[in-house]
Amino acid sequence: MRLNLNADLGESYGAYVMGNDHELLQLVNSANVACGLHGGDPHVMTTTLDLAIRAGVSIGVHPGFADLHGFGRRPMQLSATEIRAILLYQIGALDAIARGFETTVTHVKPHGALNNMACESAELAAIVASAVRDYNRELILLAPALSELAAAGERAGLSVALELFADRRYSDSGHLLPRSVPGSVLHDPQDCVDQVLAMVEQQGIVCHSGKCLPTCFHSICVHGDNQDAVATARLIRQALTDRGCTLLPLPQMLC
Amino acid sequence: MRLNLNADLGESYGAYVMGNDHELLQLVNSANVACGLHGGDPHVMTTTLDLAIRAGVSIGVHPGFADLHGFGRRPMQLSATEIRAILLYQIGALDAIARGFETTVTHVKPHGALNNMACESAELAAIVASAVRDYNRELILLAPALSELAAAGERAGLSVALELFADRRYSDSGHLLPRSVPGSVLHDPQDCVDQVLAMVEQQGIVCHSGKCLPTCFHSICVHGDNQDAVATARLIRQALTDRGCTLLPLPQMLC
Amino acid sequence: MRLNLNADLGESYGAYVMGNDHELLQLVNSANVACGLHGGDPHVMTTTLDLAIRAGVSIGVHPGFADLHGFGRRPMQLSATEIRAILLYQIGALDAIARGFETTVTHVKPHGALNNMACESAELAAIVASAVRDYNRELILLAPALSELAAAGERAGLSVALELFADRRYSDSGHLLPRSVPGSVLHDPQDCVDQVLAMVEQQGIVCHSGKCLPTCFHSICVHGDNQDAVATARLIRQALTDRGCTLLPLPQMLC
Amino acid sequence: MRLNLNADLGESYGAYVMGNDHELLQLVNSANVACGLHGGDPHVMTTTLDLAIRAGVSIGVHPGFADLHGFGRRPMQLSATEIRAILLYQIGALDAIARGFETTVTHVKPHGALNNMACESAELAAIVASAVRDYNRELILLAPALSELAAAGERAGLSVALELFADRRYSDSGHLLPRSVPGSVLHDPQDCVDQVLAMVEQQGIVCHSGKCLPTCFHSICVHGDNQDAVATARLIRQALTDRGCTLLPLPQMLC
Repeated sequence: MRLNLNADLGESYGAYVMGNDHELLQLVNSANVACGLHGGDPHVMTTTLDLAIRAGVSIGVHPGFADLHGFGRRPMQLSATEIRAILLYQIGALDAIARGFETTVTHVKPHGALNNMACESAELAAIVASAVRDYNRELILLAPALSELAAAGERAGLSVALELFADRRYSDSGHLLPRSVPGSVLHDPQDCVDQVLAMVEQQGIVCHSGKCLPTCFHSICVHGDNQDAVATARLIRQALTDRGCTLLPLPQMLC
Repeated sequence: MRLNLNADLGESYGAYVMGNDHELLQLVNSANVACGLHGGDPHVMTTTLDLAIRAGVSIGVHPGFADLHGFGRRPMQLSATEIRAILLYQIGALDAIARGFETTVTHVKPHGALNNMACESAELAAIVASAVRDYNRELILLAPALSELAAAGERAGLSVALELFADRRYSDSGHLLPRSVPGSVLHDPQDCVDQVLAMVEQQGIVCHSGKCLPTCFHSICVHGDNQDAVATARLIRQALTDRGCTLLPLPQMLC
Repeated sequence: MRLNLNADLGESYGAYVMGNDHELLQLVNSANVACGLHGGDPHVMTTTLDLAIRAGVSIGVHPGFADLHGFGRRPMQLSATEIRAILLYQIGALDAIARGFETTVTHVKPHGALNNMACESAELAAIVASAVRDYNRELILLAPALSELAAAGERAGLSVALELFADRRYSDSGHLLPRSVPGSVLHDPQDCVDQVLAMVEQQGIVCHSGKCLPTCFHSICVHGDNQDAVATARLIRQALTDRGCTLLPLPQMLC
Repeated sequence: MRLNLNADLGESYGAYVMGNDHELLQLVNSANVACGLHGGDPHVMTTTLDLAIRAGVSIGVHPGFADLHGFGRRPMQLSATEIRAILLYQIGALDAIARGFETTVTHVKPHGALNNMACESAELAAIVASAVRDYNRELILLAPALSELAAAGERAGLSVALELFADRRYSDSGHLLPRSVPGSVLHDPQDCVDQVLAMVEQQGIVCHSGKCLPTCFHSICVHGDNQDAVATARLIRQALTDRGCTLLPLPQMLC
């Protein structure tokens, strides 16, 4: 069995520190790196790539809405031209910094509200997928399993890596329960491990009701914005390797 | 005789309009396009590239300090790592948007305080030149004649296009007279034309004192942030073509 | 007959110039001054107040959403605490700059999407009105006639100045026709004058259909972001004074 | 003996958390609250004032340069008009939010580079002092002992509270040793306590060399941007109260 662990990283901004990038980079296989619009800045991007390269972690673009104050979590109604523009902008910016290290970005995963909206709107998902493809058709699109975004990536001819969340409960339709629903976010590291193992065993999304929606998947997203999350990532990594799972960066995972 | 006319464009931001991009794009051969840190935004960059491509104008990156409020005109003391990061970021961002139009950027010209500082500091100039080269050694560096930036570009193995200013007086050392010196900025379009023609005739920088500093040059920068500037650009273009000068985009100019 | 002419001013930002403040200040009686969140900055606010004071124009706060890139025109979903915070922040900031000139602000008029949303939501309108009152119960609330915002101002015990728009068509419900509806924005200065005169004569909102919604009103808003708008303001001013109307700043108007 | 403990607070921004405001507010007597230009935002300001009021901590304005990315720590060359504008803006903004709680700000302490520059330049210090006075001559200016800023406050007729730093070494001239000098920042909480007690005992600045520069002082600044700092603040508070020192908010301290 092969799997990938991914995390959102490089979201600090100037003097503002967000997350535990250094520790998480020792635990995950692929990093989704913020690009300066919802978080991150050119210097933070450089530092993050430097650390990721040393840790053997594959580098992805994590483009978000241009909304530092809202951290890209507020829905914004933009035209198709604007969506395409902010995607190309952020992909190119991070890829250039990667090129400065003689490497390249290998995947794209939208951030926050942009990701949520693209998971539900086939139209928005198609704009995202075509921007990624038009930049580089070799890029992997990292998208939630059973989402419109994943479907749009397939239609655009991209390699799509499907992800599941370790710390979020799912509804029977395969969507994340909103954060406002009590119990929708798992805080106990052991609960997260149990959910991941159940999904691995049943090969699908194990919903809050116990129902299983069968789907293949390639990656588990671990969030990293508190100390618990580092502990959670460590436990998940351990549990998977204990069961003989090989953890790989996304490009190797999809080979 | 062959020459290039260049102008800074795409500096609008959201609802804020700067310059007369549409008119200037009919007059110049190469556009230096802002990249969202000192001016411009992803949507403005897209619109500007669309217009430039239709006008047959070659596209350059115009990277500046991350200072929208100061429009990149305030000196900032950044580390070498930070300077390299903001350059790669902006070059990559614009190049990605160009790739969305199935084209590519062909030159880089730093903006404002970053440009001024790199023209005087060999150390800063070397950082700029190596960032450009590490992104793509085919990129042309557009730099003021007789500047440290031009010298650093040559040392880095880049093609360097040397530029002169139509509307600024020069000191005997070949530097621009500061804007604070009365008469340092030429407002009368005919004065600008006269200065350009004198430089073409004497093949060098004609200083305020009348002294000529011999230098080859490839491009004339015309500023575009007021209506007079459009008139000036039109007059210069006319005067040069009247004298049999062929006006070319930068890549063709340097062939 | 007494009336007030008001305009949105001080919306420039750093090197970005917006509007024709200098000319409009010679024509209107009250200025709604941006406060640095959707437009304007502390220096522009200072310059604008200096000009307004010299012109004998009364000064109002024009608070908007914290969205420079969208110029405060994009709807944002904020909590009641956040709305109250951005209102107090902007009112206090401008009033302090006024105090630096030994004067004070005398009215508040929300900007853009914040204004539109407060005109339709009684709940949001109440938050706005109470923030204004809690800062200073002597402040005048400048609000569109027949809006929820005007009603909330009355309920909060504020003096409310009711405004009509010179250059926008109204639906039969007394709301502005959306800008997307052809003909909803009047571009011809004479059309604007005709609408204002009809409203003055019929003492109410003259809708696009010809229907009149009777309402008292105290102020006419003239927009100032293009040259035509200055011409329009001049024509309206002339037409009103020709008919014997006395044009007054808001505090004198409501005495 | 009476003293005041002050700390910089409210420097978080949107989703970005800075410092341990909640814990520090239980330990200090006066809070210097960021105002949205170098850190903080209207919502954070509101939350911080709410906490400070509950904790019985007096509220001061902590105005900085408009430089979120540099956290107000980068020197900026602004005109006198601009300096005055950013001071009035920030003082008024925070005071308005205080007014929303039916209270008021009672002191001003500039932040970061603005503070450092005003401590060394009599001209800049005079601009700062007159802006504070012109807003409200009852405001206390909190300034480092022996600084140009303190002198300018006196000359402007303001009440000046003089502060010393617990965690920074001083040169023989009474200036802080630059952070670049090894040992200039004290990290061990006990070292900070020892320095404070030596200053209290010798009634002056105890320099790195051991020399004492006699000066009266009213307040000790404790920094709060890491866990150690909370421990340091707690130890200093304990050591001072153990020695019979009464710790007071600034207005009571200066009565």
